[in-house]
Amino acid sequence: MTDAAMLVQEVAPRDGLQIEAAWVETADKIALVDALSGTGFSRIEVSSFVSPKAVPALRDAAAVFSRIRRRPGTVYVALVPNPKGAERALAAGVDEINLVASVSETHNRANMGMSPADSIAGFARIMDSVRGAPVSINATVATAFGCPFEGGQPDDRVIAQVERYLSLGITGVTLADTTGMANPRQVERLVTRVLALVPAERLTLHFHNTRGVGLANVLAAWQAGARRFDAALGGLGGCPFAPGATGNICTEDLVSMAHEMGIPTGLDLPALIALSRDLPRLVGHDVPGQVAKAGRPCDLHPVPQGA
Amino acid sequence: MTDAAMLVQEVAPRDGLQIEAAWVETADKIALVDALSGTGFSRIEVSSFVSPKAVPALRDAAAVFSRIRRRPGTVYVALVPNPKGAERALAAGVDEINLVASVSETHNRANMGMSPADSIAGFARIMDSVRGAPVSINATVATAFGCPFEGGQPDDRVIAQVERYLSLGITGVTLADTTGMANPRQVERLVTRVLALVPAERLTLHFHNTRGVGLANVLAAWQAGARRFDAALGGLGGCPFAPGATGNICTEDLVSMAHEMGIPTGLDLPALIALSRDLPRLVGHDVPGQVAKAGRPCDLHPVPQGA
Repeated sequence: MTDAAMLVQEVAPRDGLQIEAAWVETADKIALVDALSGTGFSRIEVSSFVSPKAVPALRDAAAVFSRIRRRPGTVYVALVPNPKGAERALAAGVDEINLVASVSETHNRANMGMSPADSIAGFARIMDSVRGAPVSINATVATAFGCPFEGGQPDDRVIAQVERYLSLGITGVTLADTTGMANPRQVERLVTRVLALVPAERLTLHFHNTRGVGLANVLAAWQAGARRFDAALGGLGGCPFAPGATGNICTEDLVSMAHEMGIPTGLDLPALIALSRDLPRLVGHDVPGQVAKAGRPCDLHPVPQGA
Repeated sequence: MTDAAMLVQEVAPRDGLQIEAAWVETADKIALVDALSGTGFSRIEVSSFVSPKAVPALRDAAAVFSRIRRRPGTVYVALVPNPKGAERALAAGVDEINLVASVSETHNRANMGMSPADSIAGFARIMDSVRGAPVSINATVATAFGCPFEGGQPDDRVIAQVERYLSLGITGVTLADTTGMANPRQVERLVTRVLALVPAERLTLHFHNTRGVGLANVLAAWQAGARRFDAALGGLGGCPFAPGATGNICTEDLVSMAHEMGIPTGLDLPALIALSRDLPRLVGHDVPGQVAKAGRPCDLHPVPQGA
């Protein structure tokens, strides 16, 4: 366990900013992505090519991609729900497309306006159209650990969707706990099954901390052999069904836990903390991350006077 | 793993309220303790018998103990730092005294005004004075996972302090991560060593969520065989060195995780959530707990119109 490294993919610019009510200027988004790449991320989910009407906060995806500084060794990812989005993403020069479909029929209809089967049929067309293009393809199983409308989803349906992705030639797979319903025992069970199909270096776990269990789920996934995790600076993000609840697991909290456990991430934690402390200025409100407030465990305090 | 139950000891009335700036009325404290016992807790840490100058928020400890409704089967605990506090606690009719000394010399001097050795010498006098009294004794190793002034503490010193407690005839032991510095690997290591000395039914883990890792530490401790955990309703509590950081691990978040994992606690989670939602009225500010904001994973949402 000690020798393996953890790969953290930063998703704040996409999964974090997409839910912010106040507009974040394109220049500020670019500065955030560039600052993040400077802390050492090998993967950043930068934006998404979805309908600007559905997600107005990310309507400047192409502009952001055109002006970020491409750090050698960093893969710049965009979320894409359908063939039209894939076309725009390719034109914007993304390194990787992250397709997404929910395992829950109801959630996919609410989110994408079509059945999961229709979403995945679109992925097949995308795979045809990107053949030979300098882009890699990841696909996410959303609501893999539960749907806020339907409740728990059978593991077998998650596995079937992973197998369908692989049969299309998709190389990377993400299991997403879209609204923070996962628990450690379920995570251990499902990750163990999926790792029989997808090698650890191509499986990503995407947890939300909606119910406070995000890092416990990371621990369970890590123990089951997972090595790649999505996280958002400051714990940005959120859930439209849980006002006031926290969003994605927090990058700097995750990195602090990993480093304290002796697991390397290749990331500059003090730089991440400094960036996170600047987020309230950017988004106009406090953010849920804890390490940015408390400091690292090794950041000691002066002894009180008189002690 | 599935068959074992988790014992959750509620500590919000003590570890939560002790740090609140605004005075909570004695009647409100009593109502909180009585409401908590109504949700099924077998153990509640009610208050502490410390200097009213040091912790003015709990200066009404005796009045609270005299007026709570004693639910049969619930053990009502008080924190006690020294022989004088033990005397007051006995007079107030507490069921259990929880002694506390830090493993860190500097922290104990800052917190108690004496060395850990002097604190523990006081515990020996307390053990003499309570012989035959209808009270049980637990003792806490504070800063067991790190000290905010000194940093990491050697495991061997924690073990030596546990052995010293046992040699005095103290039956219950708590390992406390006083300022939220623990990580899961350290927890696994230390819990495994302490469980060789103290049976699981007499060992309590006390975690804070200061750096977001609280429930991951619970998971690691559980996997190592620990079965008893302190937690505070709403995640009340805090750390004087980390303004804005969260406090104790949150009771309802812990209970939700346990129940989702199939681990019984004997607690009424919906009742806990309802109580937690009333905390902002009691303490005058938002509290960090997540499940009270998001609901349980099984609390489903209506499908949005048009989906």
